[in-house]
Amino acid sequence: MERPRHQGMAKNTYMRWRLPLVCLLWEVAMIVLFGVFVRFSPEADAHWEEEKREMNLTSDIENDFYFRYPSFQDVHVMIFVGFGFLMTFLKRYGFGAVGFNFLLAAFGIQWALLMQGWFHSFKSGKILIGVENLINADFCVGSVCIAFGAILGKTSPIQLLVMTLFQVTLFAVNEYILLNLLHVKDAGGSMTIHTFGAYFGLTVTRILYRPNLEQCKDKQGSVYHSDLFAMIGTLYLWMYWPSFNSAISDHGDAQHRAAINTYCSLAACVLTTMAFSSMLQKKGKLDMVHIQNATLAGGVAVGTSAEMMLTPYGSLIVGFICGIVSTVGYVYLTPFLESRLHIQDTCGIHNLHAMPGLIGGIVGAITAAAATEDVYGKEGFIKAFDFTGEYQTRTPSVQGGFQAAGIVVSLLIAFAGGALVGAILKLPVWGDAAAENCFEDDIYWEVPEDEESEAYHMHNPDKPASP
Amino acid sequence: MERPRHQGMAKNTYMRWRLPLVCLLWEVAMIVLFGVFVRFSPEADAHWEEEKREMNLTSDIENDFYFRYPSFQDVHVMIFVGFGFLMTFLKRYGFGAVGFNFLLAAFGIQWALLMQGWFHSFKSGKILIGVENLINADFCVGSVCIAFGAILGKTSPIQLLVMTLFQVTLFAVNEYILLNLLHVKDAGGSMTIHTFGAYFGLTVTRILYRPNLEQCKDKQGSVYHSDLFAMIGTLYLWMYWPSFNSAISDHGDAQHRAAINTYCSLAACVLTTMAFSSMLQKKGKLDMVHIQNATLAGGVAVGTSAEMMLTPYGSLIVGFICGIVSTVGYVYLTPFLESRLHIQDTCGIHNLHAMPGLIGGIVGAITAAAATEDVYGKEGFIKAFDFTGEYQTRTPSVQGGFQAAGIVVSLLIAFAGGALVGAILKLPVWGDAAAENCFEDDIYWEVPEDEESEAYHMHNPDKPASP
Amino acid sequence: MERPRHQGMAKNTYMRWRLPLVCLLWEVAMIVLFGVFVRFSPEADAHWEEEKREMNLTSDIENDFYFRYPSFQDVHVMIFVGFGFLMTFLKRYGFGAVGFNFLLAAFGIQWALLMQGWFHSFKSGKILIGVENLINADFCVGSVCIAFGAILGKTSPIQLLVMTLFQVTLFAVNEYILLNLLHVKDAGGSMTIHTFGAYFGLTVTRILYRPNLEQCKDKQGSVYHSDLFAMIGTLYLWMYWPSFNSAISDHGDAQHRAAINTYCSLAACVLTTMAFSSMLQKKGKLDMVHIQNATLAGGVAVGTSAEMMLTPYGSLIVGFICGIVSTVGYVYLTPFLESRLHIQDTCGIHNLHAMPGLIGGIVGAITAAAATEDVYGKEGFIKAFDFTGEYQTRTPSVQGGFQAAGIVVSLLIAFAGGALVGAILKLPVWGDAAAENCFEDDIYWEVPEDEESEAYHMHNPDKPASP
Repeated sequence: MERPRHQGMAKNTYMRWRLPLVCLLWEVAMIVLFGVFVRFSPEADAHWEEEKREMNLTSDIENDFYFRYPSFQDVHVMIFVGFGFLMTFLKRYGFGAVGFNFLLAAFGIQWALLMQGWFHSFKSGKILIGVENLINADFCVGSVCIAFGAILGKTSPIQLLVMTLFQVTLFAVNEYILLNLLHVKDAGGSMTIHTFGAYFGLTVTRILYRPNLEQCKDKQGSVYHSDLFAMIGTLYLWMYWPSFNSAISDHGDAQHRAAINTYCSLAACVLTTMAFSSMLQKKGKLDMVHIQNATLAGGVAVGTSAEMMLTPYGSLIVGFICGIVSTVGYVYLTPFLESRLHIQDTCGIHNLHAMPGLIGGIVGAITAAAATEDVYGKEGFIKAFDFTGEYQTRTPSVQGGFQAAGIVVSLLIAFAGGALVGAILKLPVWGDAAAENCFEDDIYWEVPEDEESEAYHMHNPDKPASP
Repeated sequence: MERPRHQGMAKNTYMRWRLPLVCLLWEVAMIVLFGVFVRFSPEADAHWEEEKREMNLTSDIENDFYFRYPSFQDVHVMIFVGFGFLMTFLKRYGFGAVGFNFLLAAFGIQWALLMQGWFHSFKSGKILIGVENLINADFCVGSVCIAFGAILGKTSPIQLLVMTLFQVTLFAVNEYILLNLLHVKDAGGSMTIHTFGAYFGLTVTRILYRPNLEQCKDKQGSVYHSDLFAMIGTLYLWMYWPSFNSAISDHGDAQHRAAINTYCSLAACVLTTMAFSSMLQKKGKLDMVHIQNATLAGGVAVGTSAEMMLTPYGSLIVGFICGIVSTVGYVYLTPFLESRLHIQDTCGIHNLHAMPGLIGGIVGAITAAAATEDVYGKEGFIKAFDFTGEYQTRTPSVQGGFQAAGIVVSLLIAFAGGALVGAILKLPVWGDAAAENCFEDDIYWEVPEDEESEAYHMHNPDKPASP
Repeated sequence: MERPRHQGMAKNTYMRWRLPLVCLLWEVAMIVLFGVFVRFSPEADAHWEEEKREMNLTSDIENDFYFRYPSFQDVHVMIFVGFGFLMTFLKRYGFGAVGFNFLLAAFGIQWALLMQGWFHSFKSGKILIGVENLINADFCVGSVCIAFGAILGKTSPIQLLVMTLFQVTLFAVNEYILLNLLHVKDAGGSMTIHTFGAYFGLTVTRILYRPNLEQCKDKQGSVYHSDLFAMIGTLYLWMYWPSFNSAISDHGDAQHRAAINTYCSLAACVLTTMAFSSMLQKKGKLDMVHIQNATLAGGVAVGTSAEMMLTPYGSLIVGFICGIVSTVGYVYLTPFLESRLHIQDTCGIHNLHAMPGLIGGIVGAITAAAATEDVYGKEGFIKAFDFTGEYQTRTPSVQGGFQAAGIVVSLLIAFAGGALVGAILKLPVWGDAAAENCFEDDIYWEVPEDEESEAYHMHNPDKPASP
């Protein structure tokens, strides 16, 4: 059971008291805060019968549950299986990928229910939650999963929990500014989730820069079956992305349209990813890293505009471009960012979320600015952009301007927040591993004996197989 | 192709005539019984147009299919992928885990449609089935999958089919007593599925006690990738549990509320599981066994109360406690049960289903007893507990008492039934393997050559790699 | 990085310019065609509010999105994860299985939206698409995935794209003849998807016959974990098949009934598959190939009749038969087809799709011919078979005749189309691999170093482990 080769590690990664303490204290805090603040929304409350009468609903099927629950479950799968398994591509970090993602998401959704609740569902001292809140909490945590991709393999579970605490908070603030103050549309979160999450994570990883990470370059690769595990993540993200982008759109045509646009964008993205993956490699072979990641960029990039009248061919164009941008990013930009800017981005979130997220914000701004009553219909136009109340007189071009402002705000909060959180995570109390132990599960996990000795043998062919 | 190391096995595991005979005869019996008894419910029958008029429904969307089908599919995934893959953690029993689970569940749902149909959907000589029956059949089979967890790796497929036949029958009886005679609420099955299934399985494995199982202790472990396969099962169970607990609740607020409560309980459970997994291990490392199993205990434990006004913070508290109880169970109780009580529980269902199931029953009883018209609203109160007809005058505290009685009945039937079925399975005609061949796929499966020889090599480092 | 053992390969598999060119040009063509032709259906268009008024709908829940989206997502999972992972069973072709399936399906759905759109959703010069079109596009691509199964491991990605282009076109023509000209019912596609797709693929693989394929017999097998990956595909196909067969059925009872019938048929099929898998093997052991494939035949075989009043026991009978037929096919027919008819069918689609598809067409014809107003009700009868307008006077027996004609048409178009496409694919410009390099990922994929050298070592035990 002794693993002498780790005895020499420089850092204290002993989690026995620190991790339990953080988990238990924070969960107790959640219970107290939920006890004080969180109650059921009218559609989930046993008083629903009375509510139904008041709202003049004739059938239980009008409950928001039936409009959104299937999409919620798809989003839920994306967060836990999608992101979790996408990150299992590393040969010896599968437990950490799927396990830590599980941990941070499970904590994050609770904290997000509170943070987003205070901003958006707060009524007479209580946060009233329904299925839409669950989706939004999953969305918020999605941005943390994205940031996790940048620092995958290099942080302790406590650091991840600390990051989640801060990032969820900042996410909620940013989201409030965009959706409520700027009155921006962003149903699929190109700005709030992807741009914010990715630049936040990239800033954090920049600050946590490890100069000696080269030594474990071999552990940053995949093995055959770990690439197949990662494809499970990829496909679930790809297949359910139409649900993601339509999950919180308005009932009816908006949800319907968002799903179609996303479906189209993603389909186009696969073809350009394959094309460039082959083209940019000397031998013309396809690279699993691109297929696992860049094929998803099309979903990111219609996050803002999918519920608008982007049209199917517009979606194809967006997907076409993003497959190229993302694949080129993996080949040229990621090495550049690492060597020149010291941004060590394990999963390449800059290519999958940051750039496509920015493109998504811009496409959203243009699509909004180009909206006309002719295309949307008189009622559809007002409904699509919620041009009611104090926004009654806002024009599409003004809306486009605000959408663009939303991108800038998201970037600013991501950079500032990432810098702050990166600095906090740099404190030497969180139990992160030394560079030579990065990307290795057995720092934080009980790893089964046999296979590991086999793996050890595989990577050290000069050593004998027998322990 | 010859595997000399198995030639010396003491028992006859030859399945060639026995397994086909059982499968074919039983399936013929199913066809005959379905032919005599099973027809479509009015909502699935081509006479639906007339039915719609009669029930004054204005739209096809009022068909129960649209209320429940998405939840049904989630439950279906839990039974076949969730349980199937959760049990693939063993290094050489993946085929048996996922394959036998497939077999017993496919048989079980047919038999459950009949058994539950006779008790609950029998009208003028016919069982009328709709989507709710499919869900209930999956639920019933869920209890068999749970029991399978206790005896995983130690039984022949015929034994599993025999167990399924009896367990489904007893499940239906127990369910009838609880739901119809005691008028107990148990939508997510803390009592009917988990408590019953787990104590039934534990009794069976106790009776099938194998004194020499120690010899294959090494095969009871996992390898790196088998742990990742198991995480697929875990995550699908975890993600879809809100659908499980809400699948057969009343339309509208009850389904909505059950999903939210379950979501909350499961989230809390992950944090306490991680905390105690780290705390109870000397080196503070996380154990995959706990993450794969104890994180799910929160879903089990709100099975009865999720559709009640448990409230989100109540759910967090339940999840908090169950993550702890379950993890502690894995560390201390499972070894104790094995060494002292001779209960060999392969998957630790005592920790994941038995104890959390009991807690779930108790929480349900308390929540029911604490119900007030103030909290539920006048109509909501009656609807939630179905206090109509002969139960019009039942009070919450009386309901709480009946709920508690439901736990006791489930336990009694589980123990008695498990003892009976265990005795039947002990008969030397079912083709189970000798102790030294337990937890090994190649007793009942054609296993691909290469990998196995590799595995063989791995476990026997003193042998050369070449065959 | 050099792999000398491939230097001697006879064929030019260099994809660097060919694959990107095809992908990019075709995607540009898609964008142009979508730009000219494709718009949103009224239910996905922002003018929906006006549409709703016109159609007298009182609620957004009446949008077809809510009737079909959950089923769409299930079908989507079947196409990408189901078929993709089902084909990962080969020990060294997992990337190609899941990756090429991804590529061809992503292209195919776009082309199918156009082709099917021109035939079925063309209004005043535009194709109007909604969720039902997405499902139909997935269905159409399903037939390509089936054909892919026959040629798995033996073709280049360009060949697959070329095949997809032609097969989707022919699918749409065949579908138009069946559904519109013959007025045939085939909601789950026994004829249009399975019979057509399978015989098309079998014809293609016959024409692409490779006499020397024996040399890589060892690579046509599985390894332990690749069989588990394949089971992910199997289970998702199996679980979601009820959604597949009900996805485009009429709202209400038809969808409900189709799901129940499919559920029953699949359950029965598992038992007879297990029975015959064990019975036909000398040692009585179960064979993963059968479990992975034949268990699904029951879903194929109720594809036409599931939405009819097949009844649950009728479904059990169909599933019972098909499990047997399919398993027997794997044991006896596949070797015969290969040795005598030179049909090299990698995945055995003849057993899983061709024969069960034919059975499904026949069962559909019989069920239609046997329909009576008594069983369906007066309105239900007309609605089920769409006996309106010019078909007002069609009788069940005539309908049965047309159903049977549909089988014949599907077969003819499959054979003729397959011959044509096979001949095209035989041109020496598509970059397919030599026989000795079939079933190997590293022709078209960057494959991670370590694992491969390990695998290499495994398969060549006389070579030392160190590279």
